[in-house]
Amino acid sequence: MTYRAPLQDLVFSLRLAAGREALEADGLYADLAGGLAEQTLAEAARFAEGQLLPLDREGDRIGARFADGAVITAPGWREAYAQWRAGGWNAIAADPDFGGMGLPALLNAACTEIWNAANISFALCPLLSHGGVEALESHASDALKETYLGKIVSGEWTATMNLTEPQAGSDLALLRTRAARHPDGSYRLTGQKIFITYGEHDLADNIAHLVLARLPDAPAGVKGISLFLVPKFLPDASGAFTRRNDVRCAGIERKLGIHASPTCTMIYEDAAGFLIGEENNGLACMFTMMNNARLSVGLQGVALAERATQAALAYARERRQGRAPGASETSAIVEHPDVARMLLTMASLTAAARAICFETAASIDRARRDADPARAREADERASLLTPVAKAFSTDIGNDVTSLAVQVHGGMGYIEETGVAQLMRDARICAIYEGTNGIQAIDLAGRKLAMSGGARARREIDDMRAIARESGEAALAEAVEALAQASEHMARAMKDAPAQGLAGATPYLRLFALARGGTLLEKGAKLARRENDPNAKRYETLSRFFAKNVAVAAPGLARMVMEGAESVTDARAALGS
Amino acid sequence: MTYRAPLQDLVFSLRLAAGREALEADGLYADLAGGLAEQTLAEAARFAEGQLLPLDREGDRIGARFADGAVITAPGWREAYAQWRAGGWNAIAADPDFGGMGLPALLNAACTEIWNAANISFALCPLLSHGGVEALESHASDALKETYLGKIVSGEWTATMNLTEPQAGSDLALLRTRAARHPDGSYRLTGQKIFITYGEHDLADNIAHLVLARLPDAPAGVKGISLFLVPKFLPDASGAFTRRNDVRCAGIERKLGIHASPTCTMIYEDAAGFLIGEENNGLACMFTMMNNARLSVGLQGVALAERATQAALAYARERRQGRAPGASETSAIVEHPDVARMLLTMASLTAAARAICFETAASIDRARRDADPARAREADERASLLTPVAKAFSTDIGNDVTSLAVQVHGGMGYIEETGVAQLMRDARICAIYEGTNGIQAIDLAGRKLAMSGGARARREIDDMRAIARESGEAALAEAVEALAQASEHMARAMKDAPAQGLAGATPYLRLFALARGGTLLEKGAKLARRENDPNAKRYETLSRFFAKNVAVAAPGLARMVMEGAESVTDARAALGS
Repeated sequence: MTYRAPLQDLVFSLRLAAGREALEADGLYADLAGGLAEQTLAEAARFAEGQLLPLDREGDRIGARFADGAVITAPGWREAYAQWRAGGWNAIAADPDFGGMGLPALLNAACTEIWNAANISFALCPLLSHGGVEALESHASDALKETYLGKIVSGEWTATMNLTEPQAGSDLALLRTRAARHPDGSYRLTGQKIFITYGEHDLADNIAHLVLARLPDAPAGVKGISLFLVPKFLPDASGAFTRRNDVRCAGIERKLGIHASPTCTMIYEDAAGFLIGEENNGLACMFTMMNNARLSVGLQGVALAERATQAALAYARERRQGRAPGASETSAIVEHPDVARMLLTMASLTAAARAICFETAASIDRARRDADPARAREADERASLLTPVAKAFSTDIGNDVTSLAVQVHGGMGYIEETGVAQLMRDARICAIYEGTNGIQAIDLAGRKLAMSGGARARREIDDMRAIARESGEAALAEAVEALAQASEHMARAMKDAPAQGLAGATPYLRLFALARGGTLLEKGAKLARRENDPNAKRYETLSRFFAKNVAVAAPGLARMVMEGAESVTDARAALGS
Repeated sequence: MTYRAPLQDLVFSLRLAAGREALEADGLYADLAGGLAEQTLAEAARFAEGQLLPLDREGDRIGARFADGAVITAPGWREAYAQWRAGGWNAIAADPDFGGMGLPALLNAACTEIWNAANISFALCPLLSHGGVEALESHASDALKETYLGKIVSGEWTATMNLTEPQAGSDLALLRTRAARHPDGSYRLTGQKIFITYGEHDLADNIAHLVLARLPDAPAGVKGISLFLVPKFLPDASGAFTRRNDVRCAGIERKLGIHASPTCTMIYEDAAGFLIGEENNGLACMFTMMNNARLSVGLQGVALAERATQAALAYARERRQGRAPGASETSAIVEHPDVARMLLTMASLTAAARAICFETAASIDRARRDADPARAREADERASLLTPVAKAFSTDIGNDVTSLAVQVHGGMGYIEETGVAQLMRDARICAIYEGTNGIQAIDLAGRKLAMSGGARARREIDDMRAIARESGEAALAEAVEALAQASEHMARAMKDAPAQGLAGATPYLRLFALARGGTLLEKGAKLARRENDPNAKRYETLSRFFAKNVAVAAPGLARMVMEGAESVTDARAALGS
């Protein structure tokens, strides 16, 4: 099963998300101009297709192995990681002060899609490192930055996120890992963390674990959590990082997918650690890294959906079965309307999810780069609003689209040899980690919808409404109005009857994504038409299909939010609870 | 992960599907009366929970193995199969003339759900044998019946279905396996079949392969296909079945799921075979076995959905994270409205799919048993109408519900040790085999909707309408009207613009299932209330939830059928075809 990075689509999506004004007038994206974006993506594609993709299937088959506290990555992994570093790919989005290239989050998003499509198990390692870089950039002391940041940016060392414990998953208030103050100003951590991605591996010389723990005198709950950096190796007397810290990997999980990405249980026994940010303010620091990671996980959904769509389309063009309407001989199955529906569903969901993710990334860039503080603040709120939608919708459709790819392949799809089953297995984690999609929905319906008294969400909906009106597509206009109504209902419910609001959160997020995704596709189709883009016809087709076959679910979703929630909250008896 | 056969729900669903009249007045189900149904199901549950369930996880882990042309089933499989036979379970639905118990298809359906929930990989073997029994009962010569039927009914031998070839999956017209007439009246078959479930194994002394092949002078296409019985062992001079026939297993597939069910490539090289039915009439014979198998596969979807729902509910009652609205301490996650929504979605989809499958089985029984030929014919048409809905909807929701079970388990769901990931992997095949769900949708929208000039479908919709009206539930009434409109549109489209009809087939089937499923749940809730059933409150809750949160998608689906199909048929360029 092959994969070619969809360069034309990615470049077009970048331009759509960046916006003409930002690209041309206000200079916000000088670093996307002059062919740099195209060139970077073409190089990224070459590396992903040439180095990462060939390792993906064997990585799944062989997986990472655990022996005597060490993790051995799959064959070829070490060499590929060395080349990844040598190519400078680890550093593209990081701060130039620490060796990064400082490229926009938007371009990084497109690259992230490419890496994850080629090999999600590999891409998870730098994805976590990148989250670590962001947390350290924002919150670490200069001394910590000095020691760690440059090496993590270059990829010489990697970083991990240590949140989950057996009793503390979505609820971090329950975590028990303890941190004690040490006379030298450092800390000593003791506890067990589970589900730690690349918690141990043989790709890099050192691993910087970012670990949430409690100080002895910390307040209860999430306000008593601090963030620490716990390196695998500490410096010896000569300053070389050769001294093993008291953190070890106790085993790795046997999982449904991402077999080549080691998921580690980590044991901390009086391990030396260094505070990041302030004591008891760890959650805020961790959120810096989580928000970034949430967008990246959304892009994993897009990535696997794109690869699955390519695989299904290639198979459907080749496989011949039955006669399509009007055909005089056996047809390629792509000609059968029911198969075409599946392929269009896959392609349009992928394009919509990509558009939402890229829009989120562009908002992050504007928040960071716009010299006008009001515009920067507005963009920051917009990124906050869109992040849970980008994460949850993209990973939901990652599941849907990879499953449809299996379906298009028929019996062959169920055979592991074909490779699409792996995509479905790999994709399944994305709706779970970095905050389950239920958590994302609650974040959207609660915190995000309420930002600025609801004004930010209303402006987002106004933007959708303008696009829908201009399109003349009734299904799109109805989707936006359904969202507008459901949003008002949701904002009220979260105040007056939170249980009912929460019961409608998941359909609300889906509704938001259908309206936002559909209008972004429409905006893109219009831009492409205006500019005589070679793919204009295809973008129009996908936009129209999405409006009439996907967004058309919006009124039903609005009813679930507004009329269906009560049947959830009334149902405790039926659940035996 | 445990599973308890939901005996109260099964018995209630049997009564609902059988109908009061058939049970009490016209004596159609004398063999369900007097506690026989309850007793049979309780025994089946004991066997499934005690013997089959304990083998399921290890069967997945170890799988069936292939060596030197033989297939070795997983540890414990042979002993369990011997007990299965000894318990008489293989024979419950077969003709008493050949050692069967002749129990109704409806009771067999409930048992089929139980076996497949406990261990789908095991249950597949008798499922295929049962299909073989039906084909032989209906079409085989007395001599063939004499030799084979009794032994397959008892389970001493097993049967297989050999349809698929590498180039012929959904399109049987393309099959190439050749059959030559032999002077002794038998035939010699040569060719390759793939994806043959239990094509080779060590559970029974002989395997009767039912094989589709072409005679040398056969007409082209599906009208030139004949059905043959090709035994693994032929009789020697003494009449003992010790002489190996020229059919062998060339290997088994490595699959996403059902690891313990061997999926074989079978090679026929001048293998001796015996005609079943008439020459060139093989497809009709095969359809006898397919129709039965389609309902059984639908029940596999129900089975895995039921087991997944039980697992998720048990986990959600135990796992404590976060505070539910109004709670003063950490809550079991079942208390969180978003988790409750997932669980209610799972339970109500499962109940709706079960109701449709059981209704189909009851129609099969009436078609066979009703002394009134008009009523029998009507019931036969009804079974034909409902079969594709039972197969496709139940297996679609099998995918949805098992995936939701993973989601409810969070990170634990992604770990193979937990067991729910296996359910998701196992379930994925059900939407593909025995006719993909796309093929089912086309069968419904084309052949089945057109039966008796559309009268049979209209009567089905009238029945739904009456229930919806009486319920006073607006969402249900709208679902039925959406179906009524879409059905008229579809009937016209299949005549005037078949490509557009076919493009709407999949959403049409889903729409049909939502209206039929929702009205059956409502009918059941009312019956339970009237009879003071101990589960009446739960059935009402599920019915109400389904109407307001699942069936509410119906108008959107109708629009996809009526307004969305054109955007599919216009889209060829976008698919590069």
